[in-house]
Amino acid sequence: SSPITVTMFPGDGIGPEIAESVKKVLSTAEVPIIWDEHFVGHTVDPRTQSFLTWESLESVRRNKVGLKGPMATPIGKGHRSLNLTLRKELNLYANVRPCYSLPGYKTRYDDVNLVTIRENTEGEYSGLEHQVVKGVVESLKIITRQASLRVAEYAFAYAKANNRQRVSAIHKANIMRKTDGLFLTCCREVAAKYPEIVYEEVIIDNCCMMLVKNPALFDVLVMPNLYGDIISDLCAGLVGGLGLTPSCNIGEHGIALAEAVHGSAPDIAGMNMANPTALLLSAVMMLKHLKLTDKADMIHAAIIKTIADGNYRTADLGGSSSTTDFTKAICGNLNF
Amino acid sequence: SSPITVTMFPGDGIGPEIAESVKKVLSTAEVPIIWDEHFVGHTVDPRTQSFLTWESLESVRRNKVGLKGPMATPIGKGHRSLNLTLRKELNLYANVRPCYSLPGYKTRYDDVNLVTIRENTEGEYSGLEHQVVKGVVESLKIITRQASLRVAEYAFAYAKANNRQRVSAIHKANIMRKTDGLFLTCCREVAAKYPEIVYEEVIIDNCCMMLVKNPALFDVLVMPNLYGDIISDLCAGLVGGLGLTPSCNIGEHGIALAEAVHGSAPDIAGMNMANPTALLLSAVMMLKHLKLTDKADMIHAAIIKTIADGNYRTADLGGSSSTTDFTKAICGNLNF
Ligand SMILES: CC(C)[C@H](C(=O)O)[C@@H](O)C(=O)O
Ligand SMILES: CC(C)[C@H](C(=O)O)[C@@H](O)C(=O)O
Repeated sequence: SSPITVTMFPGDGIGPEIAESVKKVLSTAEVPIIWDEHFVGHTVDPRTQSFLTWESLESVRRNKVGLKGPMATPIGKGHRSLNLTLRKELNLYANVRPCYSLPGYKTRYDDVNLVTIRENTEGEYSGLEHQVVKGVVESLKIITRQASLRVAEYAFAYAKANNRQRVSAIHKANIMRKTDGLFLTCCREVAAKYPEIVYEEVIIDNCCMMLVKNPALFDVLVMPNLYGDIISDLCAGLVGGLGLTPSCNIGEHGIALAEAVHGSAPDIAGMNMANPTALLLSAVMMLKHLKLTDKADMIHAAIIKTIADGNYRTADLGGSSSTTDFTKAICGNLNF
Repeated sequence: SSPITVTMFPGDGIGPEIAESVKKVLSTAEVPIIWDEHFVGHTVDPRTQSFLTWESLESVRRNKVGLKGPMATPIGKGHRSLNLTLRKELNLYANVRPCYSLPGYKTRYDDVNLVTIRENTEGEYSGLEHQVVKGVVESLKIITRQASLRVAEYAFAYAKANNRQRVSAIHKANIMRKTDGLFLTCCREVAAKYPEIVYEEVIIDNCCMMLVKNPALFDVLVMPNLYGDIISDLCAGLVGGLGLTPSCNIGEHGIALAEAVHGSAPDIAGMNMANPTALLLSAVMMLKHLKLTDKADMIHAAIIKTIADGNYRTADLGGSSSTTDFTKAICGNLNF
């Protein structure tokens, strides 16, 4: 098949090393991809600093698919988070994070298999804040029918396409009756169109308690922005942390930007020590999105097998492998 | 010593049964308490419904100390949550929840020993919400210098009095720069007065991930209302759930209202099946607050021993003991 052009943002810190790992594994697996690389981030290109270039945004808009490493936000006022800018500019309205126990990588949980779907554009992230009087400040949480319906539609369509049985809407509508109430109203409307999928509503505090007691109770979770931020990280923690969990951002007009959501780890940048797993698994999500299912499955199996074997593990997983040796091991496990 | 008058709200559902258990254990332990009981809640007194009587509020104001079971909020508009009303009316500004692994009650974690301190009066619980235009609603999160300083002062004083080494302020100030930013500013001001206590700031999503990976990293956590709601339940989940974790609300003018924060469990109400542990441990917190330390320690040890022995456990803990048998077993374990 003719090659697909994919935008690549290696990002800051360890970003370029883990991006290298992805390129190596995908080319070894003979995935027909041409990478359209853009060096955005304050360490990879001091000129761009916290700005996204017009070219890099256009690249995603044109290619409709991208892969993104970590981008750090320089500390100090006046710097916008590049991650948030990307979400805004590309209207990346849903952040999808599958979270499952990795065979062979032991945590306190061995029965996690869920997907969090986070509304990614509004809610507590409105950026609207002000001082009312001295010593009294307020932030606005904005919930709209449009964004809530959009993410709910995505969640149910995702559940159906992936043979998931249940969608749980997470909320605090007993307190935020109007905002979270509207979110729930939208979820219910969409749920009515999917009678084959069980729909339930779970209050966020109770949800977090249930997740740590018995995560197997959950399947697909959909929620407003901040709850998604919190719960997706909690769930990542259940299976080992952000170094092991992939994500993909879904935007309007069919855009998909897969993303490793861990930090840029400046302390180990350039030392060939970083764990590329989250970016690799994000690339697998991207391949599935591109309907390159066989390649996605083959690469996924090789990653899982390499981690399970345990002979090649990076420092964060208690091993002493380099990024490149771990990558080579994955390539060796590709089963054509 | 002359008896102390304590307000008791048995509450709804299983409330009266677990309150009975507390009264039994405390009288067997010869704690010099006179209970000033008020039946507030829609099942215990249909007349009061979702209203707090003037007498019951006055009782807490006069006695300055109280113990509270679960109060259910009837579903439907126009009903205010009794729990929230109490917090508002009595200015219960800090909700304190110690959370520790119970010897003999196995969960996935055996190394939890932390205390969450939640700002209990403002933040996302302002109740200020409105529709901007059709399909667009907003909620206001209010953070004030006064309430933030007050809860921070409490947290550090608590840490010092209880030989705790570290206070972590939980926030999302990278997004809510003004509101959570003000909260952090206040925490820093107070921290400066306690050089012997380590102060750190942890972003809420990262905090939840760390809590499920390694809760032993935390000691005292202080945070705005909603984060406290979420994290206190998450932490309860680590050690077995809300049926096992106590709490105490601290108000102005020296008021303390200890409280079991689990639900009223109407399905098992009146069946002598409820687990009184959370209310008993809350009573222990209350006794410590009253400086009845010996009694508090004796009762605490008896509760822990009974659960650890495992011969008398209620259904929620996988046993088949009745509330009264479990209570008798605790009384039998009181070590005078
Ligand atoms: C870095 C931060 C602004 C971001 C967020 O809060 O969304 C991060 O936590 C994430 O989940 O991608
Ligand atoms: C019942 C509900 C309003 C309450 C809250 O959100 O504060 C509860 O979850 C709690 O933690 O006491």
